[in-house]
Amino acid sequence: MTADLILHEDPRSGNCFKIRLTASLLGLPLERRQYDIMKGETRTPEFLANVNANGRIPVLQIGDRFLPESNAACWYLAEGSALVPADRFDRADMLRWMFFEQYNHEPNIATLRFWLLFVGEANLTPFQQGQIMAKRVGGEAALAVMEDHLARRDWMVGDSVTLADIALYAYTHVCEAGGFRLQDYAAVCKWLNRVSGLSGYVRMD
Amino acid sequence: MTADLILHEDPRSGNCFKIRLTASLLGLPLERRQYDIMKGETRTPEFLANVNANGRIPVLQIGDRFLPESNAACWYLAEGSALVPADRFDRADMLRWMFFEQYNHEPNIATLRFWLLFVGEANLTPFQQGQIMAKRVGGEAALAVMEDHLARRDWMVGDSVTLADIALYAYTHVCEAGGFRLQDYAAVCKWLNRVSGLSGYVRMD
Repeated sequence: MTADLILHEDPRSGNCFKIRLTASLLGLPLERRQYDIMKGETRTPEFLANVNANGRIPVLQIGDRFLPESNAACWYLAEGSALVPADRFDRADMLRWMFFEQYNHEPNIATLRFWLLFVGEANLTPFQQGQIMAKRVGGEAALAVMEDHLARRDWMVGDSVTLADIALYAYTHVCEAGGFRLQDYAAVCKWLNRVSGLSGYVRMD
Repeated sequence: MTADLILHEDPRSGNCFKIRLTASLLGLPLERRQYDIMKGETRTPEFLANVNANGRIPVLQIGDRFLPESNAACWYLAEGSALVPADRFDRADMLRWMFFEQYNHEPNIATLRFWLLFVGEANLTPFQQGQIMAKRVGGEAALAVMEDHLARRDWMVGDSVTLADIALYAYTHVCEAGGFRLQDYAAVCKWLNRVSGLSGYVRMD
């Protein structure tokens, strides 16, 4: 028998962690199937045919349906809960920060963490080496936008934790592995502690 | 008196066009305020302080509140309408394609269009020149995922047009300005015609 909710993941991925954290905060049980992206396990013909034609994890399996994209999976789990604001503007504003995360934050901060922590700087291609500085600048700009925003409020949207916090927490709390200096962002650090102090919080593996 | 809905835009931007198209399909009036991103008009102190600290357009102004991120603005306008599926899985699946658009499609296809059409290849920095091939490969991969998906269905999600179609249409229909060959993607071409044939469709400026 197939579990209701199965997370196809690599446990080192912050994008996968977002979904685990959302489920845990909501008290939803989640079966985990693990793949090693370093060994190409999400590019096999079976994975491409049955899980995600885009060759990426995470994918949230709901019965026999498959939902790629971390932030869409978090939305599926949390819609109708307190993690999604009841106010129409705030709900759209939450999505705004989730799109910001995927466009301005993740491609810089998560990619540098992946390159430096898992691939190793010495093993990067010249093309990747040539992108480090731009990703450093882009990541610092994203963290500065968050710092400015969080200097005036406790949570990214409204007065309590939402998916915007979860989406941005995932790679921010491990950004030092990508060479970013959390100590430069005092309001971000306080917010990280707010998130990790939530009831139901789980750690990244 | 301030209009209810004001779009802060550069009319050459596909991200701005998404919001105009969504509003038009829904019959919502939208006041337009135009900025020239080539002249840095979204990086002035006034813009950063009053419209978007991230220095980007589009921004949808709703009364005295400001909503950046094109796909979040489309969501705000369309929530509760037929452009957002009533089914819970389909609604998350629509967001899945909107995140795919911002992560896999826009940074490749829109960026090459911007560089080749507005900046000019001869004016690109060596760093930009060095990224052209990777963005070409990434953009073609995104179009191939769409082609595979649309070969078996008329719309990206469910049985009718949703925000997933609008988000992906914006830069796909002008991708040839970035050097992509639409003729290689037959199912995508048929889908483009489906979108442009919708009642209420407006053209990009």
